[in-house]
Amino acid sequence: MNRDFFREVFSCFNEINDDKQSRVVVISGAGKTFSAGLDFNDMLDMIGHLTTTGPEAGDVATKAKFLRNMIILLQNSFNSIVKCSKPVIASVHGGCVGAGLDLIAATDIRYASNDAFFSLREVDIGMAADLGSLQRFPKIVGNDSLVREMAFTAKNISSAEAKQLGLISSVFSEPKEALEAALETAKKIAVQSPVAVQGTKIALNYSRNHSDRDGLEFMANWNMCMLQSDDLIQASTATATRSETPPKF
Amino acid sequence: MNRDFFREVFSCFNEINDDKQSRVVVISGAGKTFSAGLDFNDMLDMIGHLTTTGPEAGDVATKAKFLRNMIILLQNSFNSIVKCSKPVIASVHGGCVGAGLDLIAATDIRYASNDAFFSLREVDIGMAADLGSLQRFPKIVGNDSLVREMAFTAKNISSAEAKQLGLISSVFSEPKEALEAALETAKKIAVQSPVAVQGTKIALNYSRNHSDRDGLEFMANWNMCMLQSDDLIQASTATATRSETPPKF
Amino acid sequence: MNRDFFREVFSCFNEINDDKQSRVVVISGAGKTFSAGLDFNDMLDMIGHLTTTGPEAGDVATKAKFLRNMIILLQNSFNSIVKCSKPVIASVHGGCVGAGLDLIAATDIRYASNDAFFSLREVDIGMAADLGSLQRFPKIVGNDSLVREMAFTAKNISSAEAKQLGLISSVFSEPKEALEAALETAKKIAVQSPVAVQGTKIALNYSRNHSDRDGLEFMANWNMCMLQSDDLIQASTATATRSETPPKF
Amino acid sequence: MNRDFFREVFSCFNEINDDKQSRVVVISGAGKTFSAGLDFNDMLDMIGHLTTTGPEAGDVATKAKFLRNMIILLQNSFNSIVKCSKPVIASVHGGCVGAGLDLIAATDIRYASNDAFFSLREVDIGMAADLGSLQRFPKIVGNDSLVREMAFTAKNISSAEAKQLGLISSVFSEPKEALEAALETAKKIAVQSPVAVQGTKIALNYSRNHSDRDGLEFMANWNMCMLQSDDLIQASTATATRSETPPKF
Amino acid sequence: MNRDFFREVFSCFNEINDDKQSRVVVISGAGKTFSAGLDFNDMLDMIGHLTTTGPEAGDVATKAKFLRNMIILLQNSFNSIVKCSKPVIASVHGGCVGAGLDLIAATDIRYASNDAFFSLREVDIGMAADLGSLQRFPKIVGNDSLVREMAFTAKNISSAEAKQLGLISSVFSEPKEALEAALETAKKIAVQSPVAVQGTKIALNYSRNHSDRDGLEFMANWNMCMLQSDDLIQASTATATRSETPPKF
Amino acid sequence: MNRDFFREVFSCFNEINDDKQSRVVVISGAGKTFSAGLDFNDMLDMIGHLTTTGPEAGDVATKAKFLRNMIILLQNSFNSIVKCSKPVIASVHGGCVGAGLDLIAATDIRYASNDAFFSLREVDIGMAADLGSLQRFPKIVGNDSLVREMAFTAKNISSAEAKQLGLISSVFSEPKEALEAALETAKKIAVQSPVAVQGTKIALNYSRNHSDRDGLEFMANWNMCMLQSDDLIQASTATATRSETPPKF
Repeated sequence: MNRDFFREVFSCFNEINDDKQSRVVVISGAGKTFSAGLDFNDMLDMIGHLTTTGPEAGDVATKAKFLRNMIILLQNSFNSIVKCSKPVIASVHGGCVGAGLDLIAATDIRYASNDAFFSLREVDIGMAADLGSLQRFPKIVGNDSLVREMAFTAKNISSAEAKQLGLISSVFSEPKEALEAALETAKKIAVQSPVAVQGTKIALNYSRNHSDRDGLEFMANWNMCMLQSDDLIQASTATATRSETPPKF
Repeated sequence: MNRDFFREVFSCFNEINDDKQSRVVVISGAGKTFSAGLDFNDMLDMIGHLTTTGPEAGDVATKAKFLRNMIILLQNSFNSIVKCSKPVIASVHGGCVGAGLDLIAATDIRYASNDAFFSLREVDIGMAADLGSLQRFPKIVGNDSLVREMAFTAKNISSAEAKQLGLISSVFSEPKEALEAALETAKKIAVQSPVAVQGTKIALNYSRNHSDRDGLEFMANWNMCMLQSDDLIQASTATATRSETPPKF
Repeated sequence: MNRDFFREVFSCFNEINDDKQSRVVVISGAGKTFSAGLDFNDMLDMIGHLTTTGPEAGDVATKAKFLRNMIILLQNSFNSIVKCSKPVIASVHGGCVGAGLDLIAATDIRYASNDAFFSLREVDIGMAADLGSLQRFPKIVGNDSLVREMAFTAKNISSAEAKQLGLISSVFSEPKEALEAALETAKKIAVQSPVAVQGTKIALNYSRNHSDRDGLEFMANWNMCMLQSDDLIQASTATATRSETPPKF
Repeated sequence: MNRDFFREVFSCFNEINDDKQSRVVVISGAGKTFSAGLDFNDMLDMIGHLTTTGPEAGDVATKAKFLRNMIILLQNSFNSIVKCSKPVIASVHGGCVGAGLDLIAATDIRYASNDAFFSLREVDIGMAADLGSLQRFPKIVGNDSLVREMAFTAKNISSAEAKQLGLISSVFSEPKEALEAALETAKKIAVQSPVAVQGTKIALNYSRNHSDRDGLEFMANWNMCMLQSDDLIQASTATATRSETPPKF
Repeated sequence: MNRDFFREVFSCFNEINDDKQSRVVVISGAGKTFSAGLDFNDMLDMIGHLTTTGPEAGDVATKAKFLRNMIILLQNSFNSIVKCSKPVIASVHGGCVGAGLDLIAATDIRYASNDAFFSLREVDIGMAADLGSLQRFPKIVGNDSLVREMAFTAKNISSAEAKQLGLISSVFSEPKEALEAALETAKKIAVQSPVAVQGTKIALNYSRNHSDRDGLEFMANWNMCMLQSDDLIQASTATATRSETPPKF
Repeated sequence: MNRDFFREVFSCFNEINDDKQSRVVVISGAGKTFSAGLDFNDMLDMIGHLTTTGPEAGDVATKAKFLRNMIILLQNSFNSIVKCSKPVIASVHGGCVGAGLDLIAATDIRYASNDAFFSLREVDIGMAADLGSLQRFPKIVGNDSLVREMAFTAKNISSAEAKQLGLISSVFSEPKEALEAALETAKKIAVQSPVAVQGTKIALNYSRNHSDRDGLEFMANWNMCMLQSDDLIQASTATATRSETPPKF
């Protein structure tokens, strides 16, 4: 992952968010591995800007400003996945390390094949992870002790361990199967009412960062509007009349 | 579940909260299934109020006000379970779908039998769930990926999967056994000091919506009072003296 | 655990926090059991202060002030483990009950041997736990139903159940093995960059008490400084050049 | 103010909230003074319940439960003013002390006549105020130093000082004028669009308890619905066409 | 203010934020009045999109999605003023109503001339304000009663009243003087260390949305970096040595 | 103010907090001026630690750690004033600048004489203030525009302006009078019930950092205990019986 990659993720998910035809996204890796994390050469090039002869040379404060802007830019790239109102499914095979793990922490549903392994690799290059893993893991998985073990040692965990951790919802024997299952789930999501699906994603994102009370008030305000949608009338009529042809949204 | 059901739940749990004799509640379903969720006919009747000839006809804002009040009324019904200072145990068999799942998300302890299945069904009728599941699940279970899969596809999960998800604490082979275990646990709770048990429920509810620091300060303020209770003196004396007859609260 | 123990934990972890040589801590129990919780005689002695003839005799408000100060003192003892910027690993064998459980809830990584059992014992002595379990469990484990069952009944759970709950990351057959594994993990942490490891602990502590957004902003501010450290340059150069000798921090 | 008064306030403001005809409320005092605060005889009667021979006699924990329920009941009475979606205007003359001050802290707009004085009187009867003043003042006025002086000494402040403090928006020479001005303002509010006015009150209440960001998101969700109201179309058309007859809502 | 205006504000303040030469911004109005708020024709055109024959025609949910996006777009315009790390000063003359008031609520320092008047005008067109006034006023001024009176009645307040409210820090007799004073203050800010000034703005923005504790922790993390800046060394040396030539940043 | 001063403030206010005889504190300056802020020589000495030959020499991260600990130490000094359960009154004359302003931002009640002036001086030495002013001002005064003007320009404001800002509750013609008034107020506070006064301070501190709801719940939990105090019974009986001798606490 180099800076181009982050920029593309950002513009891609903003586009999908606005596109009226898209309803769900599946992310997988094309090569042997899902993601090896940051591109080191690009990173060293970036850090090169800060050396005495680089374009961002200066005192600690000058460098800090440059670095803060850079980090926020990369964070916003993965935040665009979270903010995209359409569900995003990741299908992981091979390695998913460093920024790759930050990426899937921003998706909604995570599948993996047996050969997959996961690692919070940042500590190995002398830094604390800053692109989302450390922020989102405490809210999406169920074993803080294992998360910290991963974060402090950069160790790999297997798909089976990732499932027990609560990071992955299903493990498949082959990468191909994981991807097929992801596409199958995507299809099931795509036939549902977009009003219902997107409202659900927004509500779940909101709830994990707010109290129960705030979450419930949010939803009452949301649904006072959305329960007036045609989708609801169509779907609930179909259900009530036990219609054999499913409603089309 | 129709509007009467929600009203009864509300008044029932308010009564239990105030009743000096009650110490713990067990909820189970009488029929073949724990709960099939909302009563569609009642829901269509309610929506009928909003049609051009209905009693709440009007513009979008008028309907929104009616719907918001209705949602808050139903939310308050299940909130009364959370706010009830006495522990509430749910024993689930058969289906537990839609509003049924919202209901058990508001209880304290959840048991299920092998035949039970769970489904966030709302998306199937074209709406985002608004009665508590989407708000409470991110805080009470350990696999956000599976929660979202359930929420976007309305799929069923089995008791075993629900246990792995962290929704259920024990699975039993038969509905009868699940209920017996629930009653057994209820008995164990009932003999404990009500001051201790109710303080514990209030503290756990508070903690999941606040920071560690706020949670600890809450508890220091609570116990500066409650450690002066007779229950504490009685129980700690019994423990210290290794008394053979358990203290009676 | 008596008052001396709490004072020692406090000063010990403050010292470790400031000590430039220490990088990681392992806690284990020397006897047959990890911890039996509060020392009852000390507790009765403390409560004795409040009786009519004791040094803190007085009305309800006077006693409340004394108790509140005492609780905050004990809470601060275990908080010093959380605030210590170096990772703390607990290796548990035998019983880990009451205040012992509060203690490990404040550590970062938890290992246990097969013989270990865990119990939120406070309800048995007529009080709601106030030293951290009820505050931290909702954020570090993945099954709220089981947490509440433990909290309301004071029941024991086994190592295997604790692992499924998400409280423990690994179970070992013997106490000795658990401790060895803890020391092994400690070694792996100790060779990593302290800047990276301590930044990671601070970020994880912060994230579980704040929203994603606040967590990400926190980390951008932290790393605008820490990415200027020598450790990062050394480690990332070693990785980029595929150096065979690991960097030394 | 005795218990009957608190119960009546509660049911009165709940009724007004639901009543489709009401649009705004003005509160004033009928006698020589706006409010002398709690009725002492009623309070002593209430405390009498807790004495050894009273109906709520018991240990510290039993009394605490009774007192907590009582406080929450009284708090909910004044909260019903805050939660009522229609604006509430207080016109104060003479004394406004103790619970009287808690009451006006819950209203939206506060007017006073020259003879009025205000006092946080609770410290004089040996207690910290618990019905809203200490909670709402830090958010609605502009001089924390003066608030604390009032709270620690129970001193009186005049209308002029109250205006400088930011508690009162206008001072009038006579009680009658203050009331007339309040009624005049009420009329101006009553001719505005109820959708706009009530949305504004809900937004202001929300904003003072949440971050800017949360407040803005709340309003975007609210207005995605409310901008579809007939009131908006009617009012904006009237403004755009410079219609001479004001729109009627 | 039409949609073009909002887009320009957004890109303008993003540019200023990134521009290394800019240090402070002054906003004033060119015509007779600071701002008359939203451009009605543009607004009616926008609403026209939602009519049955418009490009965004559809059910309530479709329209809601369009409106929500539109509101967020406008909010982000004024948020760019808040997020811009350089101080922004508004110099107001004549009317400052509706969206004009939302705009100045997003600036840092507000000056006005005697002829200026301020109005939360939105209620007059049948809507609750959604561009920042209702969200930011409760945190930046000192009289909630007056804010609500303005918000519910759309009444005008004068410069003098605005100063007493705490909205304006200085009132000048003529528009020209207000602008000159704003430019004078801008100059004083421009000669200060940008590291110090921008850190101060970020800290103040953060503090009003977080607890004292969070605010202090934020600042400790910020300054552990920024106290290593050359600006600090230069400025503090100049002060300590009582240098006659001011430091240049 | 040098490091010794900060250490003494810390230990002094911790002692006062624990001391059973003390009920209220008055702070004033002995010399010509209340406080000139940080001692520059001490500060330069501290920064000297960080130079290449100093004891804390090292890379950016090493220096950051040293600086963060130092800032937190100084912050904790003034936090001890806020956390001290007894009210603290500041009587200001002459200059109150830089850290002097941070100090009074931590007190409860602020008085000043006519000759006093106030300045957020940190920007003048190239840094953003980090000892409390920027964190507490947005919550204790009523004119954010003026606060930011002070913070960005380091300008002086007079006592009269400070009163209008809401920083000071009373201005007196001479330093001596300000101090006498402070002592007079201290006496009035000292005769009140300490249970009531200290509960009030704790509640006000809590409220400004939490929502109304959280504030009210906090107070219900506090008073379920404190309303059982002897002070309440004594004071309310004295009031009810219109006793001529005031109750003695």
